[in-house]
Amino acid sequence: MPQLALIRHGQSEWNLQNRFTGWVDVDLTDEGVAQARQSGELLAKAGFEPTHAFVSVLKRAIKTLNFTLEGLDRLWIPVDKSWRLNERHYGALAGLDKNETRAKHGDEQVKIWRRSFDTPPPPVATDHAYHPLNDHRYADVPRELLPASESLKSTLDRVEPYWSSSIQPRLAAGETLIVAAHGNSLRALVKLLFKVSDPDIMEVEVPTGNPLLIDLEDDGITLRSARYLDPVRAKPLPPLPGA
Amino acid sequence: MPQLALIRHGQSEWNLQNRFTGWVDVDLTDEGVAQARQSGELLAKAGFEPTHAFVSVLKRAIKTLNFTLEGLDRLWIPVDKSWRLNERHYGALAGLDKNETRAKHGDEQVKIWRRSFDTPPPPVATDHAYHPLNDHRYADVPRELLPASESLKSTLDRVEPYWSSSIQPRLAAGETLIVAAHGNSLRALVKLLFKVSDPDIMEVEVPTGNPLLIDLEDDGITLRSARYLDPVRAKPLPPLPGA
Repeated sequence: MPQLALIRHGQSEWNLQNRFTGWVDVDLTDEGVAQARQSGELLAKAGFEPTHAFVSVLKRAIKTLNFTLEGLDRLWIPVDKSWRLNERHYGALAGLDKNETRAKHGDEQVKIWRRSFDTPPPPVATDHAYHPLNDHRYADVPRELLPASESLKSTLDRVEPYWSSSIQPRLAAGETLIVAAHGNSLRALVKLLFKVSDPDIMEVEVPTGNPLLIDLEDDGITLRSARYLDPVRAKPLPPLPGA
Repeated sequence: MPQLALIRHGQSEWNLQNRFTGWVDVDLTDEGVAQARQSGELLAKAGFEPTHAFVSVLKRAIKTLNFTLEGLDRLWIPVDKSWRLNERHYGALAGLDKNETRAKHGDEQVKIWRRSFDTPPPPVATDHAYHPLNDHRYADVPRELLPASESLKSTLDRVEPYWSSSIQPRLAAGETLIVAAHGNSLRALVKLLFKVSDPDIMEVEVPTGNPLLIDLEDDGITLRSARYLDPVRAKPLPPLPGA
């Protein structure tokens, strides 16, 4: 029976500073490391034995995955890294303090940028350090695919091809997979897995350091069950498709 | 210009206990972690920017690589893991204390097992926990390739195909690569790179936590220079081929 564990990275330095992060490669805090280790323990207790892992190219997710695999004693499994699992790119908001941004642009505007489905924040300038063109980890990504800013919709649109080409086929082959990523890229995977509508996905929030363990039928598409391994820190999940 | 850094894992728990390790998946000691972090610092100071990494499927090497990449702020590069970079398999000696083994089998016999080119130690029993057949990380490796014991020669013979098919072509393409592995699998790579004879390779020892940085010509084969980044803890290197 195919299984999939989705893990959101632990607390990052900019989570702590309440700043928009996106593709900026900030590190985990000590609390974030502890959350990542806890993910490993929770999954080990659940008898979870992944055969393949997927992660973004941002260290807060990579380190979360490394600590989790260490807790599972499965550092040896193959790990595929892809920019397509990165957090949503917050454009010109990246690095800004969220409260300052509200004071500057108003609550409503910031809410639209943060919570609307298809309105991206203002783009980051092409010569800005936070533009992906200026980060050599994206040197092999076709220029036209590199975002200067993303809405949730455009984030979904670049996660979906990776889901269909790299992750989903392994589930259909019966593998047990683990994905370590970010709030919005995980939202995209939840939308695909649970077949959530555009408006409803806005309400889904995957908590940090609390693995979402999903059992699937042998077709690797039909969900059999889904649960957060720490019920205390769980958040509401969409209904299973067809439930 | 292609570059290659070879790194031997930091001190392991069984290094400390003076026990034959081989394929047994023991962890790093705190000292080993510090050595791994030092590798990252030394390579960062040398301006080393790897684009691809290779490592065995043993955690002492994987964790050494993770700490090194963290020190280089390049956790995002692709990492290929292969059993072919594992340490030499010490057969029935695995887990035994080296002094007890000498007392039991005599200095000469143990020296033959450890230092001869093509005499393997006695094989581990097929039903023993240390036989690779009983470790699910090797489930996808053809049974006939899984060793019950290895000499240096048989270790070389299974490292070489991985060198030619996975590592060397990337050097020829001009990439900058990093390999984290073990005493004997690194000896195999040094033998291939420096074209060392069978008898002479027995004298080559790659120190732990001290990166061997090799510059190559554009063909990815001809060595231009090779040096240990910490000269104080360096060990003698074979002459550059053709020097």
